[in-house]
Amino acid sequence: MGLVVALLQLNPKVGDLEGNAAEVERAVTLAAENGADMAITSELVISGYPPRDLLLDPAFVQRCAEVTSNIETPIPLIVGTPLPPTSDRNLPSNGTMRLVPGRKAKVATRKQLLPTYDVFDELRYFEPDKAPGILRLSDSLSIGVTICEDAWQHAGEVPADYDADPIEQLAAWQHQGEPLALSVNLSSSPYHLHKEGMRSDVVRAASKTLGHPYLLCNQVGGNDDLLFDGRSLVAWPDGRLSQAPAWCMGAFLVDVEDSNSGRWLPWPEGECGEDCSCVVENVASDSEPRNPDTGTDLLAAITIGLGDYCRKSGIKKLVIAMSGGLDSSVCAAIACRTVGPENVLGLAMPSRYSSDHSLSDAIATAEALGMEIHTHSINELHEAAEEKLTEELADGNPIALENIQSRLRGMMVMALANSRNAMAITTGNKSELAMGYCTLYGDMVGGYAPLGDLYKTEVYAVARAINSEAEGAGLAHPITESTLTKPPSAELAPDQMDEDTLPPYELLDSILESHIEAGYSASTLVEAGYDENTVEWILERLHANEHKRWQMPPAPRVSNRAFGQGWRQPLAAKK
Amino acid sequence: MGLVVALLQLNPKVGDLEGNAAEVERAVTLAAENGADMAITSELVISGYPPRDLLLDPAFVQRCAEVTSNIETPIPLIVGTPLPPTSDRNLPSNGTMRLVPGRKAKVATRKQLLPTYDVFDELRYFEPDKAPGILRLSDSLSIGVTICEDAWQHAGEVPADYDADPIEQLAAWQHQGEPLALSVNLSSSPYHLHKEGMRSDVVRAASKTLGHPYLLCNQVGGNDDLLFDGRSLVAWPDGRLSQAPAWCMGAFLVDVEDSNSGRWLPWPEGECGEDCSCVVENVASDSEPRNPDTGTDLLAAITIGLGDYCRKSGIKKLVIAMSGGLDSSVCAAIACRTVGPENVLGLAMPSRYSSDHSLSDAIATAEALGMEIHTHSINELHEAAEEKLTEELADGNPIALENIQSRLRGMMVMALANSRNAMAITTGNKSELAMGYCTLYGDMVGGYAPLGDLYKTEVYAVARAINSEAEGAGLAHPITESTLTKPPSAELAPDQMDEDTLPPYELLDSILESHIEAGYSASTLVEAGYDENTVEWILERLHANEHKRWQMPPAPRVSNRAFGQGWRQPLAAKK
Repeated sequence: MGLVVALLQLNPKVGDLEGNAAEVERAVTLAAENGADMAITSELVISGYPPRDLLLDPAFVQRCAEVTSNIETPIPLIVGTPLPPTSDRNLPSNGTMRLVPGRKAKVATRKQLLPTYDVFDELRYFEPDKAPGILRLSDSLSIGVTICEDAWQHAGEVPADYDADPIEQLAAWQHQGEPLALSVNLSSSPYHLHKEGMRSDVVRAASKTLGHPYLLCNQVGGNDDLLFDGRSLVAWPDGRLSQAPAWCMGAFLVDVEDSNSGRWLPWPEGECGEDCSCVVENVASDSEPRNPDTGTDLLAAITIGLGDYCRKSGIKKLVIAMSGGLDSSVCAAIACRTVGPENVLGLAMPSRYSSDHSLSDAIATAEALGMEIHTHSINELHEAAEEKLTEELADGNPIALENIQSRLRGMMVMALANSRNAMAITTGNKSELAMGYCTLYGDMVGGYAPLGDLYKTEVYAVARAINSEAEGAGLAHPITESTLTKPPSAELAPDQMDEDTLPPYELLDSILESHIEAGYSASTLVEAGYDENTVEWILERLHANEHKRWQMPPAPRVSNRAFGQGWRQPLAAKK
Repeated sequence: MGLVVALLQLNPKVGDLEGNAAEVERAVTLAAENGADMAITSELVISGYPPRDLLLDPAFVQRCAEVTSNIETPIPLIVGTPLPPTSDRNLPSNGTMRLVPGRKAKVATRKQLLPTYDVFDELRYFEPDKAPGILRLSDSLSIGVTICEDAWQHAGEVPADYDADPIEQLAAWQHQGEPLALSVNLSSSPYHLHKEGMRSDVVRAASKTLGHPYLLCNQVGGNDDLLFDGRSLVAWPDGRLSQAPAWCMGAFLVDVEDSNSGRWLPWPEGECGEDCSCVVENVASDSEPRNPDTGTDLLAAITIGLGDYCRKSGIKKLVIAMSGGLDSSVCAAIACRTVGPENVLGLAMPSRYSSDHSLSDAIATAEALGMEIHTHSINELHEAAEEKLTEELADGNPIALENIQSRLRGMMVMALANSRNAMAITTGNKSELAMGYCTLYGDMVGGYAPLGDLYKTEVYAVARAINSEAEGAGLAHPITESTLTKPPSAELAPDQMDEDTLPPYELLDSILESHIEAGYSASTLVEAGYDENTVEWILERLHANEHKRWQMPPAPRVSNRAFGQGWRQPLAAKK
């Protein structure tokens, strides 16, 4: 039997240093009781990731290092934390401290490669190190220590062209006769759909080059818009892998000499609770980790996103407008999964343009979920507003009249949310938001947008996953058949259908995803066979609606490229 | 007589490459006709600054270089533009091209120091160069070329600790026997109040070290939240300065052998128009440029901010809620200055809690400005909403009832804006926004927040500048005496005053500014003599209202540290 390493797959809260340190203490104790010889955490577990502008306060960084130093551990432990700068005019480091029982806490390593693209802004906050991370834990045990991006350059999985390759540096160190037993990687590697395959390439490449096991510990959970899926994993030089479960807190114990030894110790307070049935996945050299089902993985992702936003911000109750349509029904189901159906209030607010099924579908969904739903027609307010404004709006753009209905509903949702000290959630999806097919201060009101980074076609996949889960538990489908099959409509004018204004969602989503996430230009899309007028209409509308997205609440990021950070076009691009 | 250099102080529009290039052509032609021997532009004048994610599109960067190459000029010209990367995996450069009549356009230099703090994100988009910028314009004329930040390290005016100092590199080059006649700096140096003194330190330090004139050309105008004040300037080695006017487009012509030679050629289409009376300011070695009056400078800044946002986004009309209070009166005046009073609609929307002076002050302001104002009581809608929601809200948080009024007004403002294809502007100031003393989707509705970065005490200074300007023109004061002297009130409940909830604004602003802009912690503030409970109450509220600021529209940045970029605290910091 070889050395047993525990990867502590935790869910830190940004800014809660003492709470995060306490979680690390509990996890390392549990791991030691279960036979671990040493343990590592994820990247910046003490500050939580991403700490952003908190890092500009030197006292905050100092306190991170102090809190880390005071962690008590029964076994050697490597903890990710911000570290104070090495000189007056330097920035802090993204580093690790080494804690060994009976010895003084010590700075172990500082991150070398600082990603500054997409959701990452690390050169804004951190000073890069230039030396590889070697840590001597005892006379007989030296290991390589890398932090997240440090390992990605080696696999070519980064857009940047860094000067250094820390994996090659560690390999060179070994060639000079200093054997390392293993290398570890402390990660806060944000989720996006289908990313898990990239991570297995990274650890396999590192392990192969180094000739020893390579262990990557990833964070789990949500912080504002960023999600982390866990899936900590270990690679052996011959390409075998062992991967911890996704979306679950716990400790992943691995005997580095036995690729079938991985054990998962779930957290009683974690997402799965005491009934956790998550398992470790062992992967042969010639295969890849299983691809998760898209709908199921997205459902888990956005549930943890909203759930952690609520839990970490102290939000206990949610309010949601329910139209009987797909988006609001799915959001209601997500809301019930996160704060419990007893803490969710749905509002059905029919107008003169609402169809009968709007109300009946909304009520059926609320009943299946076991949540409260109140019905308030907006007709009286709508009429009062029209009476007040008829003359003012007589010769104007007719969109003003449609928007009044949406804004009256927004006002009512916010009144109920304010009254109950609850948070409203907004139900828009990425396809709608891209096209501006939504009303600022109307259906866009809310503190969080659970579907804001899902294309409409992905929302259908999530809906099916919700129903299939309910079916598995012998319960009624929360998303009614009628909701799933009727054509989407905003119901702000008589017989209005989304497809009167927008291209069919399959086509729209395909063009949007190709442009936003793959970066294809209009001409490339047309060459690929898309209709030129459709492409131009969509891209023009995408850019013209940037101003609405500037006022969006956070949305859990599930795509390769979300709106918001990393998708910020300045004004003139809008025309 | 020596070489005459023209600094082209232009107002580029982000993304409008052809338009920006045409402006450069016009300006350099005008400068040549007036005796200039060579000319330089500001930084990235072709793409406009900041181009942000447009730079992620290689075709955009390529097109910038091409458009620059095709500029026709009668005299040697150095143009700031993004340049394609030098290798496949590199980022583009922030550089310059040299255009000389009869010769092929050529890449001249690439920026070395890339600021990545505060409003700057340059390491995200650009590759830094390692060599100093030397440009041989003819056999007898070599000059040093630097770009913005390149000069700031030398004066110690940067928070970062760069490895290189391009000014020292140029000096070392001269010591090797290659004399340079002068050095230039192409800048896009964003405005903040009282920054002009820092820039004069920078050019003086560079000129002193180099022993020759140092000429800095700065952009003017607004792009989204960033403002540029112009104030291009030249320093001579003995410390003399010559500075171009602020907030005005034109060409600044300087004979480098005569520090009193500076001439200002204004732009007929610029802010000042044909009547421009702006002058060059010559400063002796032992003095500093005049400090502008705070209210006047802020008034110019936020006027150009809103004006350029409208002009560059194609917005021709504005709608604004007018309460007779200070903020909305000042915003109405700004709105009229930017799109003309005939394109501004004010809405007075009294409720049962409004005082008589609310309406009379709003009407007096509108009359003085010559703008339209419509009065619509919200009483009927307010009553209809209360009737609808009385039961729902009976035992809840009473803030819900106050917010209904604000949200009904927001709905009406947006209805009028949508109907007229106009943009609503929101009137909140930085003190209110910091404290969350405003209603999401209520008084916060709008596409731009002209006062969003001004403390309440600064809004008073701007109001006085507006009145004093009107007085100078023999017109009535737009901001009434009553508006200036009555105690601020939101009027959402009977006899409600801001100071019932908030500390007096003088005190509040002083604490906010010390914390946000100077970075003083709570304990430092208490040591400085502020009351501990007040400090704690303010800072707690500041952090608890971060979520509202996430949904703010752009506000012109006039402070050392604005909300938004560079002030983004993650969720748990809010508690």
